[in-house]
Amino acid sequence: MTTDFAATRALFDLPEGMVYLDGNSLGPLPRATAARVAQTVTEEWGKLLITGWNKAGWMEQPARVGNRIARLVGAEPGSVVMGDTLSIKVYQALASALEMVPGRKIILSDTGNFPSDLYMAEGLCRTLGPDYQLKTVAPEAVMDALDDSIAVMMITEVDYRTGRRHDMAALTERAHAVGALAIWDLAHSAGALPVELAKGGADFGVGCSYKYLNSGPGGPAFIYVAPRHADRVRPALSGWLGHDAPFAFDLSYRPGAGIERMRVGTPPVLQLAALEASLDIWDQVDMADLRATSLALTDQFIAGVEAACPSLHLATPRNHAQRGSQVSFRHPQGYAIMQALIARGVVGDFRAPDILRFGFTPLFINAEDVARAIAIIAEVMQGDLWDRPEYMTRAKVT
Amino acid sequence: MTTDFAATRALFDLPEGMVYLDGNSLGPLPRATAARVAQTVTEEWGKLLITGWNKAGWMEQPARVGNRIARLVGAEPGSVVMGDTLSIKVYQALASALEMVPGRKIILSDTGNFPSDLYMAEGLCRTLGPDYQLKTVAPEAVMDALDDSIAVMMITEVDYRTGRRHDMAALTERAHAVGALAIWDLAHSAGALPVELAKGGADFGVGCSYKYLNSGPGGPAFIYVAPRHADRVRPALSGWLGHDAPFAFDLSYRPGAGIERMRVGTPPVLQLAALEASLDIWDQVDMADLRATSLALTDQFIAGVEAACPSLHLATPRNHAQRGSQVSFRHPQGYAIMQALIARGVVGDFRAPDILRFGFTPLFINAEDVARAIAIIAEVMQGDLWDRPEYMTRAKVT
Repeated sequence: MTTDFAATRALFDLPEGMVYLDGNSLGPLPRATAARVAQTVTEEWGKLLITGWNKAGWMEQPARVGNRIARLVGAEPGSVVMGDTLSIKVYQALASALEMVPGRKIILSDTGNFPSDLYMAEGLCRTLGPDYQLKTVAPEAVMDALDDSIAVMMITEVDYRTGRRHDMAALTERAHAVGALAIWDLAHSAGALPVELAKGGADFGVGCSYKYLNSGPGGPAFIYVAPRHADRVRPALSGWLGHDAPFAFDLSYRPGAGIERMRVGTPPVLQLAALEASLDIWDQVDMADLRATSLALTDQFIAGVEAACPSLHLATPRNHAQRGSQVSFRHPQGYAIMQALIARGVVGDFRAPDILRFGFTPLFINAEDVARAIAIIAEVMQGDLWDRPEYMTRAKVT
Repeated sequence: MTTDFAATRALFDLPEGMVYLDGNSLGPLPRATAARVAQTVTEEWGKLLITGWNKAGWMEQPARVGNRIARLVGAEPGSVVMGDTLSIKVYQALASALEMVPGRKIILSDTGNFPSDLYMAEGLCRTLGPDYQLKTVAPEAVMDALDDSIAVMMITEVDYRTGRRHDMAALTERAHAVGALAIWDLAHSAGALPVELAKGGADFGVGCSYKYLNSGPGGPAFIYVAPRHADRVRPALSGWLGHDAPFAFDLSYRPGAGIERMRVGTPPVLQLAALEASLDIWDQVDMADLRATSLALTDQFIAGVEAACPSLHLATPRNHAQRGSQVSFRHPQGYAIMQALIARGVVGDFRAPDILRFGFTPLFINAEDVARAIAIIAEVMQGDLWDRPEYMTRAKVT
């Protein structure tokens, strides 16, 4: 073990007395972020103004930051670029991939995929015309549904509800064997485990930075294109910063070199600065260490909660290979239970209809936190402390 | 005159000794922005973590901020929402508009439009199929090119090179008369002049916030949909935050009410916080006052530069009705001249092949600044001070 997780934990600003098990929804604030963002606002924007695009390196920032994420997701240098939101990047990858498999018109996904991915696919199919369709099957049925009618397989590696992990290499191999392309959404795997985009043969990868990568609310997404495709994909969302010469102001689009063509508009410099502060921590992390610690924490949590709370039913696979870095339990009163836990400082989240979801991030969560969370969950469940009217009323957003 | 522009000027942090005439490319930093962003980072993200979506109002921020911009662009309350980049919003508006005019497949634009708008249209046409096409004509020829073959007219109100302003009401009226819809890009008019989206009959409007609206590098875009269309447009980029019930996690898309459906993914909360700090200034500005002052400043600049520099040829219309809030001059050595001016503290920008562009923002530019800029331009032009090798080498980005 070369990663010092006690040291990384000290780099986060966590509210006193809280066990934050929701870094898989919004990562917490690194201590260095505020100063980094302030520096970008005051010293770069404030003093350099328009020249910041050159002098502060804003123009190259999406590729520079993408390269730091590349290591975390097993991507080749120069194959990842930042920008937009995950939904936009899903659309871009899908449109590009569909055009590379002429004659086929079916996108295959699964019902455990995050709904926005399905919605974006639905919207794209409608734009493309009535022959195009999105086909969804159960998460366990994806392998068998891959046949030579499928143009593109679009899968989120780790299920946002259950934490179940798909086998990227096996599914991608099968997709390729039937002549389809594979798009992997890494929303719940980037920063959660050692992703292997290149080794797994992925054609496209997309992900967000505000969960395990701790870039803050609304941090930008990233997109990966396998180097073998990068110079021939069409971006579909063909914006000026993906043009080969944006400042020539040509009237016709000509895609830029490689991954640069997947850029669209002006990059969100302040959000990228926040992400860079977080990546300074990630640069100290060995992904194998992260995985070993994550599995130990989730094992500890599963064992502790199951021993103390028989009414909570595990929704996450016990098998390590099939697990991300979250643990989910089902309970018909899941919403009220989560409210009761949050009131006592154990912050996870609820996903309809009955999922209690807890994310584990070794960067700032340790075994003592897990023990404390287990004790509070046990107290709430054994005393039925969730069964109070104030925990039953749903907020508009959870 | 009810707006106190001396007071608004004091609210900006401008580098000592600089006349910043490039707020039409990247607006300068308001003094209050750094604290506002820091508050969002430290107090909201840092302390509220995931609950910030409710407790800090992040989830409603795109509509709340959109409403403040609505006043500046003459839009009805509840008709504007923030998100993504301008290029993405152009795509979304175009795809929506095309579907509302079945049977027609031509997008009309002009060669003075910002290239990214044309590139996005090109990409969309390619996705839609070979029958769809983007037709571009000279800016002066748009009116005559509007016939019953046109599905959608997509025009940027103020030309980014020349500052020429289209007649929104007249072109929109003609578009509607031939059965087409009108999309207006307000990149160089939002915050530059009193835009009249509702009064002008626009069907869609899009714009960015980092120019005259001073939201900082990479600030989010906005989109307007006329209320008469808002409940029937299809967003095309149909992301989860445009869904009628995002947290129901339905597997199929169902568009949200009105303008909310034009949202796509997670909003950029830090960039929106920066924009809110700038809108606190905008709330003090009467748009008629802004226009009167802007015209006085641009008149002063044109007269002063023309009197002193006969080799600079005005590219901007003299007619007030046809002018935005920028002044452009042509010169074959425009690039070197702009470098020489920047070295002397007069910051404008250069647009290929020969345009020197100067933006005027009454919020922080006054008549004394204009006089000083004229004097420096005169000095540079009369002494051929631009004719030095260090001003000839082009930076990668200008």
